[in-house]
Amino acid sequence: MATVTCVGIAVMDLLFQVDELPVGGGKFYASNYREIGGGVAANAAVAIARLGGDARLVSRVGDDAVGSRVKADLTSLGVDASQVAAVTDLTTPVSAVLVDSTGERTIVNHTPAELFGGCDTAAASQLADSDGVLVDVRWPDGASAALGAAAAAGIPSVFDFDRPMDNGGGDLLTTATHVAFSREALAATSGTNDPADGLLRMAERTEAWLAVTVGPDGVYWLTDGAIAHLPAFAVEVVDTAGAGDIFHGALALAIAEGDPEDIAIRFASAAAAIKCTRPGGRAGAPSRQEVEEMLKETF
Amino acid sequence: MATVTCVGIAVMDLLFQVDELPVGGGKFYASNYREIGGGVAANAAVAIARLGGDARLVSRVGDDAVGSRVKADLTSLGVDASQVAAVTDLTTPVSAVLVDSTGERTIVNHTPAELFGGCDTAAASQLADSDGVLVDVRWPDGASAALGAAAAAGIPSVFDFDRPMDNGGGDLLTTATHVAFSREALAATSGTNDPADGLLRMAERTEAWLAVTVGPDGVYWLTDGAIAHLPAFAVEVVDTAGAGDIFHGALALAIAEGDPEDIAIRFASAAAAIKCTRPGGRAGAPSRQEVEEMLKETF
Repeated sequence: MATVTCVGIAVMDLLFQVDELPVGGGKFYASNYREIGGGVAANAAVAIARLGGDARLVSRVGDDAVGSRVKADLTSLGVDASQVAAVTDLTTPVSAVLVDSTGERTIVNHTPAELFGGCDTAAASQLADSDGVLVDVRWPDGASAALGAAAAAGIPSVFDFDRPMDNGGGDLLTTATHVAFSREALAATSGTNDPADGLLRMAERTEAWLAVTVGPDGVYWLTDGAIAHLPAFAVEVVDTAGAGDIFHGALALAIAEGDPEDIAIRFASAAAAIKCTRPGGRAGAPSRQEVEEMLKETF
Repeated sequence: MATVTCVGIAVMDLLFQVDELPVGGGKFYASNYREIGGGVAANAAVAIARLGGDARLVSRVGDDAVGSRVKADLTSLGVDASQVAAVTDLTTPVSAVLVDSTGERTIVNHTPAELFGGCDTAAASQLADSDGVLVDVRWPDGASAALGAAAAAGIPSVFDFDRPMDNGGGDLLTTATHVAFSREALAATSGTNDPADGLLRMAERTEAWLAVTVGPDGVYWLTDGAIAHLPAFAVEVVDTAGAGDIFHGALALAIAEGDPEDIAIRFASAAAAIKCTRPGGRAGAPSRQEVEEMLKETF
């Protein structure tokens, strides 16, 4: 079993169930409310733990009650949260998530600019006995430190490039061994909306292994300079929230365990597909056994 | 100094500062986030404490971390929160409050239906040594119990009728000694948009003293069957959030102290006006000295 260090954001999602998304000023009433831990790297860490891996999260929250709950929640889900720093005088990232009866969401996130800007990255470069690393775009300096440490240690690293960055990815793109884009981030970074073309263009800028997830259209990746494609597993989709994060966590775990990329992609796709059959975010992350059963049924 | 028991809701407001209110699905980013205690009866209790009164709050929250913070916050503001029950398996009322750069707000509140429905009202009828009572519309059974106990004890009671009720107010309207409507609630309950006409119509249904607050147009009330009017104090309005609750808390305190209604109205109007000059909700509630200075300047 592999150990994976995830470096990036942890969030508390504040979910309000409403009949219709509110428009304009005024007072509206929600039929249900829940607080659910989220965040790209945190969700990936939870997915890894649920799949039987040893997951460490290196992150930063505020020195507040929400931050305490974020850490306690991660710990209860089997993630090593000892390197989640509680930063004085800052608030923990939170998102108001308004969900209507059709599942459409208005998400309003607040992350203090100071939380991930110009801060100490020492914790992010301590990879302990990790067999692999995953980073997100929310803490670029931490990601850079972790990817550099992974390269120095000769262990694989997955860069979850799910949102366009002002610098086009910078050194994260060239230091990671594996880069997995969202469709939106690949389009913005490569300058083309076509996933295959986008990957080919990005291959001119980095030697990293490259992939892009395109939701129901599955995954495209480059193998020996050629485009490969795996359609999404055919499942009844209930809720896609968190599916991308689960995909990247499972991908990083499989790669850390030494799987070839083609195998790792199938493993991650199955994990994300199972998650989509379940309501909620990372609460729907599957166990190893569930993923293996889906892979057995399908191939 | 008088003791006032307030019976009704306590809420945690989750404030997200945004450039523009979000429209439709998607992800948006907030520039600031704060958690601020609110709720009609809770705000009134804080206003009373700030004005030097002894404020008790009888309310119900969930047995959760947010509920603990709500109680701790009220206690730190000088309110006796020992009768705020923490109810097992329910969540504390919360509101996502999205505020744009012009101050316009989208408020999405969640209050579990079970929290104030069909629950034990014993605490609401224990008025201890109270000199007055204030109730809101959020906990009708609790309000009814408190108003009944106040009537039996011969102490004055203010019904803050700020939102239309399905039953048109029911026994709350006839058991309270004083009913103070919002413009919206008076219009819905009386069937006319005219504040003066509305009050005259309501006088046919209850013997309680009747008033209505109409924002910048001030307050109308009935005195010996005739309409009286006090314009709002001329102040530079920064933020009206919580002003109504502060008005009602100050009104209940002045009446509990034995002030005639005409004097109590001026006191409450001055308190609400000062609050409007300050950002934030109950954080802007004034001290007794500040109110007395404004009254001195104005008359």
